[in-house]
Amino acid sequence: MSGAERRVVVVGADGAGMSAAHQALRTAARHGERLAVTVLDRGHHTSYSACGIPYWMSGDVPTQQDLVARTAAEHREAGIDLRLGVEVVGADLAARTVTTADGDELGYDELVVATGAPAVVPDWAVRPDGTAYDGVGVVKTLDDGAAWVERFAAAGAGAHVVVVGAGYVGVEVAEAALARGFGVTVLTRTRGMSMLEEELSDRVNAALVDAGVELVLGAEVTGLEVDGDRVSGVRWEGGRGDADLVVVAIGVRPATDFLAGNGLELSEGGALRPDPHGRVADHVWAAGDCCEVRRRIDDQWVFRPLGTHAAKMGRALGDSLAGGGLTFDGMVDTSITRFSAGDVHVEIARTGLSRADAAAAGHDAVALVTEGTTATGYMPEAEPIAIWVMADRVTRRLLGVQVVGGHGAGKRIDTSAAVLWAGGSVDDLAWMDLAYAPPFATTWEVLQIAARRVAERL
Amino acid sequence: MSGAERRVVVVGADGAGMSAAHQALRTAARHGERLAVTVLDRGHHTSYSACGIPYWMSGDVPTQQDLVARTAAEHREAGIDLRLGVEVVGADLAARTVTTADGDELGYDELVVATGAPAVVPDWAVRPDGTAYDGVGVVKTLDDGAAWVERFAAAGAGAHVVVVGAGYVGVEVAEAALARGFGVTVLTRTRGMSMLEEELSDRVNAALVDAGVELVLGAEVTGLEVDGDRVSGVRWEGGRGDADLVVVAIGVRPATDFLAGNGLELSEGGALRPDPHGRVADHVWAAGDCCEVRRRIDDQWVFRPLGTHAAKMGRALGDSLAGGGLTFDGMVDTSITRFSAGDVHVEIARTGLSRADAAAAGHDAVALVTEGTTATGYMPEAEPIAIWVMADRVTRRLLGVQVVGGHGAGKRIDTSAAVLWAGGSVDDLAWMDLAYAPPFATTWEVLQIAARRVAERL
Repeated sequence: MSGAERRVVVVGADGAGMSAAHQALRTAARHGERLAVTVLDRGHHTSYSACGIPYWMSGDVPTQQDLVARTAAEHREAGIDLRLGVEVVGADLAARTVTTADGDELGYDELVVATGAPAVVPDWAVRPDGTAYDGVGVVKTLDDGAAWVERFAAAGAGAHVVVVGAGYVGVEVAEAALARGFGVTVLTRTRGMSMLEEELSDRVNAALVDAGVELVLGAEVTGLEVDGDRVSGVRWEGGRGDADLVVVAIGVRPATDFLAGNGLELSEGGALRPDPHGRVADHVWAAGDCCEVRRRIDDQWVFRPLGTHAAKMGRALGDSLAGGGLTFDGMVDTSITRFSAGDVHVEIARTGLSRADAAAAGHDAVALVTEGTTATGYMPEAEPIAIWVMADRVTRRLLGVQVVGGHGAGKRIDTSAAVLWAGGSVDDLAWMDLAYAPPFATTWEVLQIAARRVAERL
Repeated sequence: MSGAERRVVVVGADGAGMSAAHQALRTAARHGERLAVTVLDRGHHTSYSACGIPYWMSGDVPTQQDLVARTAAEHREAGIDLRLGVEVVGADLAARTVTTADGDELGYDELVVATGAPAVVPDWAVRPDGTAYDGVGVVKTLDDGAAWVERFAAAGAGAHVVVVGAGYVGVEVAEAALARGFGVTVLTRTRGMSMLEEELSDRVNAALVDAGVELVLGAEVTGLEVDGDRVSGVRWEGGRGDADLVVVAIGVRPATDFLAGNGLELSEGGALRPDPHGRVADHVWAAGDCCEVRRRIDDQWVFRPLGTHAAKMGRALGDSLAGGGLTFDGMVDTSITRFSAGDVHVEIARTGLSRADAAAAGHDAVALVTEGTTATGYMPEAEPIAIWVMADRVTRRLLGVQVVGGHGAGKRIDTSAAVLWAGGSVDDLAWMDLAYAPPFATTWEVLQIAARRVAERL
């Protein structure tokens, strides 16, 4: 097909986009097709680990370069026409063109949307001209990370960091700020860690407080206090606090504005909903944080901008675009993080439905928290773990599992995710053959005790 | 039914037997039945963790009492007639009686065989009168453990321990002896850790050697050298070594001799094969290490004397005996241990079939080892991990997974066990929704990379 190479234009050079680009080239090569793959990104970095930025801020990760999985040069060597600093501002799906901020028009045969989801910046965080006050920022891009590493280095001993948001990023940034020796306040509109049921989010809150964090629940931020160009405090309904630095970690939003006017169906939040091959329309594909993902358990589309989904979606898309058969068959809403500071270490993980999800799906659900240990009680490795398990009373199907506990607690969630993936029952989880030896588990693995207790109540 | 209480006689007061006894009482109470439960054991201990003995030997577990999950007094308080020091030497299943070493006869309505599996003691380990030489012993009962703790305490600095056998117990005892500062030789007839494929057992062998163990593969022990009553050396075909202490860890054998002459079907190795409720014949039940267990993947009976199977079997048996419906639906051949000494730490786990098992079952199997890290490469938590994955070329079904790696590697086996339990494919493992955050995994979880690589070769 030389002379008639299909032109693939990928918008967005992060995980999903680059994964799609490479996989498309590999699959095409296998099929004897040559593709002309162009990747455009408005930023100047590619294939970096956004999830690693809090650990760069904390000092766990020494340099920015450590977070870059593959450099621009490496992508180009693989035959990708990578163009950084090029912002795509419009698309004409009928004409099969995209338009850049410089007014250039680029034709394509296949368009891959992998624009990700920039951090939400609330009005109160910026000056009237839209720029952030000194000392205020989000945690999303490598440039954000570099700015935070610089701000942390410049801040004197005794500096106080206010983190707005107690989701995964908020908790990870609190860990980073404590590791740097700063005072830390975490503000959240909600009860904190609201992706967990209250019985477990309470335990995370307690861990934050144990580690010296000032945690303010139900705090709706109303504005900043500034001293010249610099932030000096944060105000919220019913309170205020001093702040040398303010980290805004209240979420992200899909970058799909450039597709407006093309009649593409978007979710209420602006996300695309690709089919398992990554297709959203004829010759238009999408993967990564600009998309919602299908939750297999209740067949709902949800917005879960996670690197692991992005990588899988990108791979399935790239393969499918080039004639392969790989599919991304949804997820079961698994996620994990930790909060670790001094003697305090909690691993936090969830998979499946929440109580609210289950109610919305019409399940008669039974849920219970069980406490146990990560290793046999007599071993020095044993740490406390609390496990929330939910199952359907009628079908006995496992619906959701959440975990908060010490070292070794978090990755236990994968076992439950595997049961959910297969549509298994709470009895499957309770009786299956999980590994036991004293340094690793109790004779009845704690996950299985938790499942058994729920099974007995159905 | 007072006045006509069913008489349940349980032979063996360890995990399986006591679990059966308690569950039978609970289920019977729920059904309004009263049972008269008598438990006989030739030993003087009950409900202890045999798996914990190596960690008592090492010093990780401070006292014998720590290993006892429930005391005799606690069992008796729950209404169990527990008789220790009573050895059952015969049974008449037609007459429904058992005979003790003292010549007493005990009638039963339901007999539960939970006699476990004593350690195999080879001829070369004992004097002509059958008693062990000083400094020589097995690692199975609490009394064995107490003897080893005493021997370790009495042995001077520079003492040398020879461990015969490089299975789980052998490796765990080697760890214990190193922790006590002894020189350690491990002898094995096989290639070492033969429950692993060679690509992975080699890594365990390397770890043993790194930690200073003298490892002799293919060593068939021919006899001991003795100095008076004490052992002073071990001879094997083609070699010998000095020994102050010799740990014999070459396996265990079901204790079912007392059932001889009753026409019960036993495996070649002397094990019982109970149905999922624990029944082996009318009014005869069995659970724990005296039984084989059914491996679901290939529907084979195999001898896997593990505490976790014993606990599950005991519970299903007790419930079924008392009219409940719980079943033990087999296993997928999961097991785990570790070897940890100084800077050397390897976690060792397996689930599913071996190459030999797969060949015997007629699978056209594809297997591959993949190396990766337990956390994202830039994190201080990242440790190396090697994963062996095997799948069927035709059906794509996952057949087996084995793991050797650093902290956090071992319990990853549970995810694969869950896939095997559900009869899932290697693609399920590769694409399912496992937890990712930098301290816990790579963006593509290493298990999934390993599965994907196999999937691509089918």
